[in-house]
This record gives sequence, structure tokens and C-alpha cells, in this order.
Amino acid sequence: MTLGILGGGQLGRMTAFAALRMGLDVRFLVPEPADSVACFSGVTVADWTDPDVLRRFAEGCDAVSVESEWAPADLLAKAAPGVPVWPAPETLRLVRDKAAQRQRLAEAGMPQPVFRVCTTETAFRESAHALGLPVVVKRRRGSYDGYGNATVRQGTELSDAWQRLADPDGVLVEAFVPFEAELSVIVARRPDGETVVYPVFYTEQRDHRCHAVVVPSGFSSEIEAEAVRVALAAVEAVAGVGIVAVEMFALSDGRVLVNELAPRPHNTGHLTIEACDASQFENHARAVLGLPLGSTSLRTPAACMVNVLGTTSGPTRLVTLPEALAAPGVAVHLYGKAESRPRRKMGHVTVLGASPADARARAEDAASRLVL
Amino acid sequence: MTLGILGGGQLGRMTAFAALRMGLDVRFLVPEPADSVACFSGVTVADWTDPDVLRRFAEGCDAVSVESEWAPADLLAKAAPGVPVWPAPETLRLVRDKAAQRQRLAEAGMPQPVFRVCTTETAFRESAHALGLPVVVKRRRGSYDGYGNATVRQGTELSDAWQRLADPDGVLVEAFVPFEAELSVIVARRPDGETVVYPVFYTEQRDHRCHAVVVPSGFSSEIEAEAVRVALAAVEAVAGVGIVAVEMFALSDGRVLVNELAPRPHNTGHLTIEACDASQFENHARAVLGLPLGSTSLRTPAACMVNVLGTTSGPTRLVTLPEALAAPGVAVHLYGKAESRPRRKMGHVTVLGASPADARARAEDAASRLVL
Repeated sequence: MTLGILGGGQLGRMTAFAALRMGLDVRFLVPEPADSVACFSGVTVADWTDPDVLRRFAEGCDAVSVESEWAPADLLAKAAPGVPVWPAPETLRLVRDKAAQRQRLAEAGMPQPVFRVCTTETAFRESAHALGLPVVVKRRRGSYDGYGNATVRQGTELSDAWQRLADPDGVLVEAFVPFEAELSVIVARRPDGETVVYPVFYTEQRDHRCHAVVVPSGFSSEIEAEAVRVALAAVEAVAGVGIVAVEMFALSDGRVLVNELAPRPHNTGHLTIEACDASQFENHARAVLGLPLGSTSLRTPAACMVNVLGTTSGPTRLVTLPEALAAPGVAVHLYGKAESRPRRKMGHVTVLGASPADARARAEDAASRLVL
Repeated sequence: MTLGILGGGQLGRMTAFAALRMGLDVRFLVPEPADSVACFSGVTVADWTDPDVLRRFAEGCDAVSVESEWAPADLLAKAAPGVPVWPAPETLRLVRDKAAQRQRLAEAGMPQPVFRVCTTETAFRESAHALGLPVVVKRRRGSYDGYGNATVRQGTELSDAWQRLADPDGVLVEAFVPFEAELSVIVARRPDGETVVYPVFYTEQRDHRCHAVVVPSGFSSEIEAEAVRVALAAVEAVAGVGIVAVEMFALSDGRVLVNELAPRPHNTGHLTIEACDASQFENHARAVLGLPLGSTSLRTPAACMVNVLGTTSGPTRLVTLPEALAAPGVAVHLYGKAESRPRRKMGHVTVLGASPADARARAEDAASRLVL
């Protein structure tokens, strides 16, 4: 049984570890050499927009998935119509256009920030004032981790935001959400619609980038139940297959709002490798291949993941790895990236603990020891 | 940081998964193509007795380890004297000669079955009768999983055993041990002598081959403490570095006797992947590279591993994999072997549970679903 993956970053790497463990074969198609999957033999480096390349790659795959919503799943589906591609190109089209994603979620009645899709600067200015400043302005496509987003606090900044962020089909503008905290619900869904859902994760961003994830989340059971209800409905609304991560805001009044979806394994789910019976990567592989889904139960009272971001530019040096490995009970994950850059995702650490506070303290300590 | 591994079976495969996860590079040298590591890019297939091959392989490795005690570590150490090889060739020489292993353990005062090393058939017959039938006769080198061993119950079988099992330097003959149960203690030891030890595992053989491993072992704390004491001393006696598994017999009078050592990750330690903070594979990589050793603590109240052996000869077909994956909370490990054979080790399943009985029942169920 062979899983094809378009893309070669850390998500593909960790999916491959999980799939190989189960005895599945994995092959990658990447447009250029990719460090994180260089350890695997089944990597094709080629023009992944070329139908011949895609068809040859897909031949012999039981399913093809993507490592990023930007991979050319649509071209692959055209080039090799007999091979299942999950998530479906239509799901990817919806999710990677943040405006289309909002509209689809609105149609499905999902709670989310008030938003407008504006196709002219005039409409944009009017919408921003109608929503009330501050507003969050998002490029429709290609925005992630804070790139392609702007929080506009004054009317004088609107023109600049429009210039920077508007695509030919406009821009997404959202009411600023004064959230109390953020959370993530990760769902695995099979082509036949069967789903499993992971426990709710408390997530913490720093500088628009995932910093820490903790489980149990600490939210009330009412908020957790609502978050799971919304996540399952949101995944259904975009017909996600494989892992879909639903990032949400928790408000002080007990409501949760969908921030955004990621139609693939997600940074907020990395702790599932150690903390849950089946990791998000294992369930992604199972789901896209139509295999039975694995248990998402926690194996531990609590767990915390902390990201390890690059601090300097240059070849990655592991001189601080021994110090991190000396931290007790820590699972260190590094992604094999040969070059570090400030804020580049280089790895993460996960700690299982007796309580969220215990796991968090030890994970922060271990992550801080890794200077890459 | 690069770990070289001589050999390409499932032990190397699982060591690589653990090492890669920590951001280490891994390369393999194998004398012929090896399915279980075919998923990795860093595999050299060449004559591993050739000094030039070995020197080129070792260049750039921070340490080289072996996947089997039969790999040519001694030749590598000669060909590339600047590269650490662990376990040391002297350790391997001792361990792979079961007679020399017994003699070394005897010098160290380890409790073990009464034994004789016999270099003539006459001496062998006399020793067998002196020990009292039944006796266990073992080929000095190359015996494993019941191959190269014989239990002799009658004097008339002695001649046949000698013919079949004696090397030019003789044969090992041991008093038959009417053990109550078997157990395994897995030790990780660094080149500087620092060690960590895993919890004691209850092990069950079927037909001379590991069938199931359970933790907690169910032995009394006195027996467990004695087993750990003996294991640490035995590993010290052979100067093991990396993982050493110490298989032992537990007798009804509370004593434990060393059955044999394996100077590498071991089938009885596979459940450490899910059940312990750091797996035997992770600690093997850490130890041979001189990195800090990881915590061997249990993450779970109980765990059980059951082996999945081949049942028929021919290409491996995964038709029963979905059924095994449908068993709740089971970690399925398959080794990527393209060909199955009756009794070939094809994979294993591990289940974490609330109690040994719970984990055992679910692991047996899952393993029985996999027909390969």
C-alpha cells in the first residue's frame, strides 16, 4: 500500500515516519530538494506542475495527499484521474482562499468573526469602518503565520493595507476578535465521512506563530464540547479528508469562533505523536488511504509541545542538542533542515506530564536549551 | 551528527526512526539490499568485509553501531580506527560466542545455569552426564531463536547433538533450567559507563521465539531488584555500550539466572517505543553517540507487545492490515519485508493499557488479526 505526498517539509517527514511504521510505502514529489525528507529513498525531485511528472508519480500510489495546501493537488487530479487525491482539490481551493473559506463556513452557519470580502478599495474602506477599527486584513491567498495579514488600528493605515494585501479578486477584512485564548481541534476524516476527533488543545501564539500547545486545554467542558461540535461541522462544510485542524478563538462570553482551517496535519497537533494512541500523522495516512481510523485518546494526564524556531542564519549546528536531550522525559524532534533562519520552524519538543503546568514548564525548559 | 549502522533489518529500521526524529543523520551499510531499510536514502549496498568499503562508510560517521552481533564491527574498527564502534568488537566477540559469554559472566560472578565448554565428544558426553540429563546443548556461534540449540533428554541423543552443534573449538552444554518464567532487562550504557535501565519485562517464548512481552512484569519487587542488579553487572562484565538486553530465567525459589545477552536493541524492548519516555532505539542512538541518555520511565500503567510472525511463503500482502488497524488503541509496526516466510519476524503490535491483562488481551487480539 503506497501513500504519495506532494511536498517535502516536516509535515511530510512526520507523516512518513508514521506510515512507514505501519508497513506502508511512502513516496514524495517535490519541486526542489527538500532537507526534511532527504532521509527517505522515495523522493522524486521534478517539476510538479508537469502532467507527465504527476502521472508517473501517481502511478502505483493508492492515494496521494499534500503536505501543504499550496501543493498542486488539482493538477495531479487532472493528470492521474484514477488515483484518489485527498484532500480533494475543491477542499484545497476553498481553504487556501481565506475569503472563500469564510464564505463556506458562513453558509454552514459556523460561528466566526464578522467579515467582508471586498473587491475595491472603496468597498474595503467602507467595510473596515462599518466593522469598526481595529480590523484584521488578510490576503486571500498565501497568508500564513502572520505573513499576508495586518491589523489595522487607524483609518490612515487602510490604504497601505489595501496596497499590500489586495489580490485582483480583493481582500478579506474581519472584525478584530478580542479573544481570551486560542484553541485547536484536530479532526481526521475518511473519504466515507467517518471522523475521529482529538481532545481540544490549548494553543499559544507568539508573533503570529505557534509557540506552545497544551492538553488538557483548561477550557470548561461546555466550551470544549462547543469547539468539537463546531470543528466537526467546519470539516464537514469543506468536505475535508485526512487531518483538518480547526483553529479557534475562545471568547470571554464562552463562545468559540473559527479562526481558520488547515486541511492537513498541523503544528498544533504535533504532541499527538506522544500524547495520543494514534498521532495526527498516523491518522492522516489512515484516513487518506481509507484505512480504519486510530484512537485519538490521550495516553497521559497532560502534555505540552513547544516549538523550536531558528535564531540565526546559517548551517544548522546541533551543538545544543545534548543539552536538550539531557532535559528529563523530553521527546526532541528536529526536522533535518540543513539551514537555520531566524523564526524558521526547526523542530519541537514534547513532554508528557502529570499536569499541564508540569508538562509546560519542562517543555519550555527543554525548548529553550535548543539554540539553532 | 551521523550514526552509521552495519546491517539493515528491523532493528536498524527502528533505530533510524528514533535517531532521525532527534535530527541525527543515519547511514546504513549492508552486504545486500535490505527491505527494512529500503525506505531510507542513506543505504550503501557493498561488500562489508572490504576495508575500503568500510573506511568510506565510516568517514563522516560520529559513531558506528551494529544491528546484529554478526556484523563485521571488528573489520570496521581496523579499517577506520578513528571512528568509535559500539558495541566494541571485543564485546561482540564475547557475546557471540556463547561459551565465551558464559565464561565471562562466570568470572563476574553472575548467577547462570551450570555449564561446561567441551572440546571433545568424550568430554561432552561426560559433562552431559555429570550435569544430569536433560541438558541444553548450544552451538558456540550462530545460534539464535532456537536454531543451533538442542535439548537432549536421553544419552542416545548426545552423539547426534555433538555432530550437529560442535564447532572446531567445541560446544556449550548447560544444565536444563526448570524455570517458572522468563524476563528481560534492557540496559543502555554509554562509552563512559553511565547506564540507565528499563523496567523489568515479563517475556514469553513460543517455539524458542519471542511471542509476547508485558510490563509491569508481575514479578515481586525482590526478584525485579535482583534482575536489575544482575543485568547491570552482566552488561558491565562484557563492557556493553549502547543497548544490551539481558534475558533471564526466574526460578520458583526466587533466583534469577542469566540466559543470554544481546548487545543491541532487542525484540523484548520493542514496547519501549510507546511505553517509555525514551525507547530502546532512541537510547541506543544516544548511547553510542555519547549523548545524554533518555528517561526509561513508563508512560503508562501497563503495556504489551506481541510479535507478528509470517505464516506463509511469498510476497507480503497487507490485506489483513485494515483489520489490525481497526483494533482499538493498537500501535501496528510492520518492518517492510517484501517476502513473508513461516515464522519470519514481520512486525509487532504494542498496546498500552490499564493493566497487564488488559494490554495483553488487546495485543493478542490485534496480532492475531494480522495474517502475513
